Amino acid sequence: VAIGPVTARNRFYQVPHCTGMGHLRPQAVAALREMKAAGGWAVVSTEEAEIHPSSDLSPYPEQRIWDQRDLPALRLITDAIHRHDALAAIELVHNGNNAPNLYSRLPPIAPVSMSLSSDYPKQARQMSIEDIQQLRRWHRDAAVRARDAGFDIVYVYAGHLMTLAQHFLLPTINQRQDCYGGSLENRVRLLRELIEDTKDAVGQHCGIAVRLAVDELAGSEGMQASEEGSAVVEMLADLPDLWDVNVADWSNDSATTRFVPEDGYQISYIEFVKSKTAKPVVATGRLNSPDLMVSLVKRGIVDFIGAARPSISDPFLPNKIKSGDISEIRECIGCNICVSSDSLGVPIRCTQNPTMGEEWRRNWHPETIDAARTAVDTLVVGAGPAGLECALQLAQRGHRVQLAYETAEAGGRVLAESRLRGLGAWLRVRDYRMQKLQQHSKVQLFPDNTLSANDIAELDCKAVFIATGAKWRRDGIGRSNRKGIQSPASPLIYTPDDILKDENLPDGNILVYDDEHGYLGGVLADHLSHQGHAVTLVTSASIVSPWTVYTLEQHRIQARLIDQGVAIYPNLVIDSSTDSSVLFKCVFSGQPTELECAATILVTERVSNDELFHELRSRPAVNHHIERIGDALAPGLIADAVFSGHLAARDYQATQHEIEDAWYKRELPALTPW
Amino acid sequence: VAIGPVTARNRFYQVPHCTGMGHLRPQAVAALREMKAAGGWAVVSTEEAEIHPSSDLSPYPEQRIWDQRDLPALRLITDAIHRHDALAAIELVHNGNNAPNLYSRLPPIAPVSMSLSSDYPKQARQMSIEDIQQLRRWHRDAAVRARDAGFDIVYVYAGHLMTLAQHFLLPTINQRQDCYGGSLENRVRLLRELIEDTKDAVGQHCGIAVRLAVDELAGSEGMQASEEGSAVVEMLADLPDLWDVNVADWSNDSATTRFVPEDGYQISYIEFVKSKTAKPVVATGRLNSPDLMVSLVKRGIVDFIGAARPSISDPFLPNKIKSGDISEIRECIGCNICVSSDSLGVPIRCTQNPTMGEEWRRNWHPETIDAARTAVDTLVVGAGPAGLECALQLAQRGHRVQLAYETAEAGGRVLAESRLRGLGAWLRVRDYRMQKLQQHSKVQLFPDNTLSANDIAELDCKAVFIATGAKWRRDGIGRSNRKGIQSPASPLIYTPDDILKDENLPDGNILVYDDEHGYLGGVLADHLSHQGHAVTLVTSASIVSPWTVYTLEQHRIQARLIDQGVAIYPNLVIDSSTDSSVLFKCVFSGQPTELECAATILVTERVSNDELFHELRSRPAVNHHIERIGDALAPGLIADAVFSGHLAARDYQATQHEIEDAWYKRELPALTPW
Repeated sequence: VAIGPVTARNRFYQVPHCTGMGHLRPQAVAALREMKAAGGWAVVSTEEAEIHPSSDLSPYPEQRIWDQRDLPALRLITDAIHRHDALAAIELVHNGNNAPNLYSRLPPIAPVSMSLSSDYPKQARQMSIEDIQQLRRWHRDAAVRARDAGFDIVYVYAGHLMTLAQHFLLPTINQRQDCYGGSLENRVRLLRELIEDTKDAVGQHCGIAVRLAVDELAGSEGMQASEEGSAVVEMLADLPDLWDVNVADWSNDSATTRFVPEDGYQISYIEFVKSKTAKPVVATGRLNSPDLMVSLVKRGIVDFIGAARPSISDPFLPNKIKSGDISEIRECIGCNICVSSDSLGVPIRCTQNPTMGEEWRRNWHPETIDAARTAVDTLVVGAGPAGLECALQLAQRGHRVQLAYETAEAGGRVLAESRLRGLGAWLRVRDYRMQKLQQHSKVQLFPDNTLSANDIAELDCKAVFIATGAKWRRDGIGRSNRKGIQSPASPLIYTPDDILKDENLPDGNILVYDDEHGYLGGVLADHLSHQGHAVTLVTSASIVSPWTVYTLEQHRIQARLIDQGVAIYPNLVIDSSTDSSVLFKCVFSGQPTELECAATILVTERVSNDELFHELRSRPAVNHHIERIGDALAPGLIADAVFSGHLAARDYQATQHEIEDAWYKRELPALTPW
Repeated sequence: VAIGPVTARNRFYQVPHCTGMGHLRPQAVAALREMKAAGGWAVVSTEEAEIHPSSDLSPYPEQRIWDQRDLPALRLITDAIHRHDALAAIELVHNGNNAPNLYSRLPPIAPVSMSLSSDYPKQARQMSIEDIQQLRRWHRDAAVRARDAGFDIVYVYAGHLMTLAQHFLLPTINQRQDCYGGSLENRVRLLRELIEDTKDAVGQHCGIAVRLAVDELAGSEGMQASEEGSAVVEMLADLPDLWDVNVADWSNDSATTRFVPEDGYQISYIEFVKSKTAKPVVATGRLNSPDLMVSLVKRGIVDFIGAARPSISDPFLPNKIKSGDISEIRECIGCNICVSSDSLGVPIRCTQNPTMGEEWRRNWHPETIDAARTAVDTLVVGAGPAGLECALQLAQRGHRVQLAYETAEAGGRVLAESRLRGLGAWLRVRDYRMQKLQQHSKVQLFPDNTLSANDIAELDCKAVFIATGAKWRRDGIGRSNRKGIQSPASPLIYTPDDILKDENLPDGNILVYDDEHGYLGGVLADHLSHQGHAVTLVTSASIVSPWTVYTLEQHRIQARLIDQGVAIYPNLVIDSSTDSSVLFKCVFSGQPTELECAATILVTERVSNDELFHELRSRPAVNHHIERIGDALAPGLIADAVFSGHLAARDYQATQHEIEDAWYKRELPALTPW
């Protein structure tokens, strides 16, 4: 498929996505992009690349193309992509008021004077006509540098509510009185000029792509695909060489399965695009399923299957489709752990693909793993995310694996949590692994199997991996209260484990107390109120499920709970309970609040189920390798558990030195004088 | 003064403090530390230095001494400090559950299994005896590396509630049943061993310092100086070579003037220390005043005058005292802008010292500035923070400066805001500059002077700097609402400018609406309620003054407002008003809330006062340099305004190329294979 002067070898297109690596970790990001190209993506894009120090996203490490000195690092990326005959795309950006410029210290700029998008109490200044001319020059110069760095496709980026080109488009923001404000034609002017400039500068060598959010998903309060969204595409029609279309803001484009379970959820917004342009179109929206992909191309809705998250979950998705190994695809569960890494400014992680972000540092490959030095008999106890992943990778390495678990059905916490409202897609973590384990000649599964230390000793396996998970505390001890509940009236108290086991709750008000601050407290409140319970959510945080800010879900969670009538009490720490009420104290003032309830569910901390581990370790006779993994080692996210299981399988039989190499491998600043 | 085997040349001691640079910006941090040494500090310390990947504070760039490869960067620092005959100290640390290990992916560790200190839903695991032995080995190895990197003093760090050595001390955290838990002797064991190990490893060459928080300022709920705090010092007495004592947590150690206005506020907690040890003692607590310093040494309370923030505000404080230039000292205003930079993970900034963090990148020196290429007549319009700083630096460069301002008294917004409750110390920003301007032979001050564009044209200055500030919007437009208030009943509406001008407020409930999220909304609510008004604070944020989380003040602000009876309504955006009430909508659900009030103060956005600038620029005849600075260019913090004024004075007469050099100067990752 031709994209201006360049040609993509197939229809799989990795659209720009963040990695939490960017300009800080050039070798790591090059290896990550190379894996995508090796996996069959015909186009592999960078994250957004700041074109100028007035678009400085520090401390967040996106890509950077401020000047010539950025080119060697970018060249690592293009060389890596070209080694596999893929096209390298770069997403040039000026972030306007989304860039606080905390490093460069330049005053941020915007169509009008306005607050930064972050909470820093500083405003962007309104751009003058000279500023706009200067911006165009910066963009043009960056395009030339991008070409020189070897990129085949250069983006003009108007999406995610994060870029100047889009800010100028939107009448809610752009209240200018000059030729860049007012009519749609005026508001489109900057975007048109940036495309024209880029074509003029590098259009002979590079395809020019436009990434446009055609709908803000805010109804008539924002841009709509049926109104100005399509008008913009129609006005610019064949000017760019490719349309990469999506919805804004980022939380809508990268919606989680918890709130938007349908794969391909952006189709209804973007299906008009092909009717307005003769140029190729790429779109996204969690396109995991090959059937859906074929249908989208056949129906003439898109020319390219775009992917960010599915390409993270499975970099080899295109090759697997090509070779017909559909069942091998590691499907994205739509949890946004990948996004959370970027939100935190650390290298990208993925629940499904524990090798993501480890391509360079650990030299991990998502599809291959070193054969065992000596194949041995191994035992994995527990079939949650850590145990399943560990068992699978041990088997792939050639070890014989016995996987024993207490329950009839495998999955552990993933199985349990997937029954909660919105988390159904998370079961893919288990299904992908179980399907492979069940077929694996080296693997024996032992469901309904509770092993004692004696049993394990008798099995005489060379290596035992204890993946027995963790249980929630029942005493109230947590981040905000290390003493626990005073005088607890125990009949009132439940833990998330009780709910996950479908224990019956009494009638009356159910109080969910969240001192963990992850997702579970909010999920339980949602689930129980949806089931018809009267629910009150009390949390020591100021908002519901604060960690989910990083996964772009927090505002949806709180909105849904409010809509369902859940009473929300923030800023309260549990203190004591009676048989009909719980007493809390304000985290700021210590002022008491007493709430009546029929039951209280404590989402506080967890205790690892490590009795078996300690019993095995205490046996003088046992010289075998005994290791805890996942929540049994340290309770964390499902992604942490999968990684822990994967790591243990990779590291088994490695020397301490080999293991430590990966901790210490990092990219250090050059100490050469500037 | 001897510190074990090394000797400090005077009693000025820069204790460890963060810079937001750390391992990411080695050249910048070396230049910063060198400036302290050049300014007369006998000891210059690093920020905390992670000893191992299991203490990985990513994305926050503190110092790092994981392995040999960190030594070249650390050597830059020690060489820089030694060039000025100062001693270089390094603060070794293991952060326990304060380290989320988001880069290294190692499971965090703690005395007991417990939540991370951040909101990431992952727990640290309880350290085994083997883990403790390993920790001691890591610490010992790091001490040897520190010595090899040229450090003269090596710290064992038990403070700020951020380190394992302190976590073991505290019974609220350390509930261990083994020889490291229980009795105080057991809880001190790890700290004692770390000191012994460090002495044993490097004590021949290096002084061994202990940084200990002797009081948690939590009464009997935490460690108290009068109880276990002094018992710990007594038990370890002469084991370390130096005691660096303070209070925990960080928000108490680095208290702002807004809440703790007294300089030397830690003295009552640490004054016992000298009675328990024969070793030298250093302490801090905003020790700005030479009189206080002398008294502390004379009274035998400390041997060293410790400083973090005063050394940031004035790196040359020791030299100025030595030379008797007391009035030249640029006193710290205790605003914690320095801390906010570290909280954000970006290079350190300072309200009083705009050169802080710019030593390497811009080659700025806090005490000297390049002479003008050609000294000319300049005019500065406005005597707020930007105008004062610009005028002062222009004069220092040798230009003739006329400083005209509309009011009788100089200071602009600093003067106005300093009248609000708690912000009195901020007036030092004006006083330091005015005192120097008034004495400067090149400067003429014109108070009570409103200049028109015609007046300015007649003055015929070569350069005009417009520092006319900004005014607060009265229409409700802000970050959460770009349409403003619908049908505003104007008699109700006030802006912060009205309050700063002491406009009389009506009786009845005063509603402060904060859509800015900086400090001012919270300050106004505090100020007015303290004056006796009934105050309601409504904010589009989830907490009061969210940006102040970065300055470590947020919890104090919200606690004080609650204590003063201010009603707080979070998560609301202004919608419309009547003549007796305001209607808000929930940011999550859109649900309405109507609040009765006698007056509403809108803290939303500001509009630059740039009419004069635009009028001057539109005159065809004027070829002179005309530049906006500070809030007149882009409203921001006082620190941003001071920087803007300083930058304009430095950059005046520079070429665009020279100006741009500083934007692009940065430390890039080495691309060499690992």
